[in-house]
Amino acid sequence: MNTVAPLLQTTARRLIQSGSRCLGSEASQPKEAPTGDPFQTFYHRDLIVTPAGPTVRRPKPKHGDTLKFGHNYADHMVDVNWDDKKGWHRPELKPLQPFMIHPGAKVLHYAIELFEGMKAYRGVDNRIRLFRPEMNMQRMKMTAKRSALPDFDAEELIQIMSEQIQLDADWVPASSTSSLYLRPTLIGTDPTLGVGEAHMAKLFVLSGPVGAYYATGFQPVSLLADAKYCRAYSGGVGGYKMGCNYAPTIWVGQMAAAKGCQQVLWLHGDDETLTEVGTMNIFVYWINENGEEELVTPPLTSGLILPGVTRDSIIDLGRKWGEFAVNERKITMSQVRKALDEGRLLEMFGAGTACVVSPVDRILHKNQKTNTLDELHIPTMRHNPSVMQRFYDVLTDIQYGRSDLMPGWTRIVA
Amino acid sequence: MNTVAPLLQTTARRLIQSGSRCLGSEASQPKEAPTGDPFQTFYHRDLIVTPAGPTVRRPKPKHGDTLKFGHNYADHMVDVNWDDKKGWHRPELKPLQPFMIHPGAKVLHYAIELFEGMKAYRGVDNRIRLFRPEMNMQRMKMTAKRSALPDFDAEELIQIMSEQIQLDADWVPASSTSSLYLRPTLIGTDPTLGVGEAHMAKLFVLSGPVGAYYATGFQPVSLLADAKYCRAYSGGVGGYKMGCNYAPTIWVGQMAAAKGCQQVLWLHGDDETLTEVGTMNIFVYWINENGEEELVTPPLTSGLILPGVTRDSIIDLGRKWGEFAVNERKITMSQVRKALDEGRLLEMFGAGTACVVSPVDRILHKNQKTNTLDELHIPTMRHNPSVMQRFYDVLTDIQYGRSDLMPGWTRIVA
Repeated sequence: MNTVAPLLQTTARRLIQSGSRCLGSEASQPKEAPTGDPFQTFYHRDLIVTPAGPTVRRPKPKHGDTLKFGHNYADHMVDVNWDDKKGWHRPELKPLQPFMIHPGAKVLHYAIELFEGMKAYRGVDNRIRLFRPEMNMQRMKMTAKRSALPDFDAEELIQIMSEQIQLDADWVPASSTSSLYLRPTLIGTDPTLGVGEAHMAKLFVLSGPVGAYYATGFQPVSLLADAKYCRAYSGGVGGYKMGCNYAPTIWVGQMAAAKGCQQVLWLHGDDETLTEVGTMNIFVYWINENGEEELVTPPLTSGLILPGVTRDSIIDLGRKWGEFAVNERKITMSQVRKALDEGRLLEMFGAGTACVVSPVDRILHKNQKTNTLDELHIPTMRHNPSVMQRFYDVLTDIQYGRSDLMPGWTRIVA
Repeated sequence: MNTVAPLLQTTARRLIQSGSRCLGSEASQPKEAPTGDPFQTFYHRDLIVTPAGPTVRRPKPKHGDTLKFGHNYADHMVDVNWDDKKGWHRPELKPLQPFMIHPGAKVLHYAIELFEGMKAYRGVDNRIRLFRPEMNMQRMKMTAKRSALPDFDAEELIQIMSEQIQLDADWVPASSTSSLYLRPTLIGTDPTLGVGEAHMAKLFVLSGPVGAYYATGFQPVSLLADAKYCRAYSGGVGGYKMGCNYAPTIWVGQMAAAKGCQQVLWLHGDDETLTEVGTMNIFVYWINENGEEELVTPPLTSGLILPGVTRDSIIDLGRKWGEFAVNERKITMSQVRKALDEGRLLEMFGAGTACVVSPVDRILHKNQKTNTLDELHIPTMRHNPSVMQRFYDVLTDIQYGRSDLMPGWTRIVA
């Protein structure tokens, strides 16, 4: 685990220099002072910190565990502007605030936008950790490239976010089931209609406390699996965390809800390949056709699958344990149904930052020949000992500082 | 053609009531006075008109024909908010202005956004016409439904836009090649992270003068045709004008530009079906394998193709003429290449609101076997008499009031 003593010192120095936690002298410094190549990246050392005054600070929720996802924001945000004349401007850490946008801004018309989702966890030692932040940054940089948005240095943004977390440390719940969700976002802002690359952009990072996903134990989900709805496609951008991957799913989610399902199992192609579930990666644990116990998830090579951090961590952990086969390969609905019929399907679960793992107990599978919905019962919750539970326990042990099983997976920021 | 005398009277009355063209008494009316069912639609009769004061009005461009697309805005915009508690708020017609947005707004993260593109034309009789606006409205309503955004009444929005055009009539170029572009947009605005339907939304309409697409005659385009890039897919939203269809194309457009191509020819599937070109529908005019002259464009039934207004108009016109076959059916690259080899391929062109028609003279076709680019020369510009030119002439004659060939296709708004 890395420590961030230099970061803490920097923040302390800035707060002292600014004289108070209100708008200080830092805020009136010229924002464009060049200190590096602004076309390569912004720099943590250029960060302008403007702490929120006591009157605009909002009360922290007392019962962090019941907080609904995405409805609460901490006091501060990171904000960095970019344009193709000057490159990146100086980054700012400032009170959370709305911003002015021209109604012709590209993000509002052509969805030139991308985001990341990550969390800061307050551990049992009261220190705050990020979980594999460099993986999120790597994905964000890849997605920025695919979106024709500007690149930046991953470590600079991690250091800036670390300072943001330090400033909002009181917002990180003191709970081993809650956390501070972080939402780095990058949008194209120039107000010119016409489909083309953005000439102005804004990167910002929001944060907010989120409650326990499983306050009362695992809640298994029902999935609608209908090949007529498709999340991603060959030659598309399913492997990138672009905003455009989400808008088309909202209405399909409503179709699923109308059939009593919480999530959509996204299939692809004539052979109904499993790709993702809701906004999560999918894992199947079964006795495969060779009689081996195997954990399997679809490979990234198709370009259809988001390279999830939890996905990658589960693969690594499973391989480290070495107790069953762990493979990235194609899974079809007919294979799932055959395994289910033959009693070989043991567990199926989604994996993502929000929930860590999410058990599946039921699939409504649209039969393309009869046009009816076949109800499949998945025995995930009955399988004992639960592989899914073990991944959940080990990953949360690492995230909350109870385990140092995987050195380098966490980074202490406060 | 419909006339809009009542609309003009309404505007005149409002301007008189407001006492001046600055912020008038209308603007201070309560904005929430209920006059209909705000969950069904907003109403033109509720429109709050706030004309821009003389000091904020900007000079109109003198040489409309050279205006770059999407870089100039007229003085006013339409703005209508919606939320799931009150439904639609009263619509406003007000000076063009940026608005405040929460950085957590759904449109910035999940691309919950859609738009339309349409034009107002100043005719040879100095009257201003819209071209088939009800088709744009129908598509916008369909797209709103697919995006889980609120519905509205098409005629109400057409009447409001008509009033917008009247107020900005000086911005409609006095030219038979320029026009006022209109951009109705609908976005989800509630600041809650979490993929789900919007609980707050904003509909706005921007407008701006655009110059002649072909100031110096038709400029044929080169296309990159590489099956590894894909615009739309079965089970996706290619048939809707959602912002999410555009973001993934920007980087591909850069790849095309790097190879000297202006546009991408979007292929689909293993048989390399032609779907669209750039942001336009595609038409092929050839002697088909049965020896017939035929105009062909891909069908809407696949869900891959945007139902373009120009596309529909070309099909209708071609069928009305009855001089060659007009068919909506699948076209593959191998059919195109065979027709080219056999001297049967006569013309290929894109069709859309911006350009009406756009001739193709060259395709760089990625050969999937050899991984090389084959250069295909399309004789569009040499074919005489040009079918494409005839469509262009007839459509612009209708749009600029020189022809009444298709009654009902234009609507006089000022």
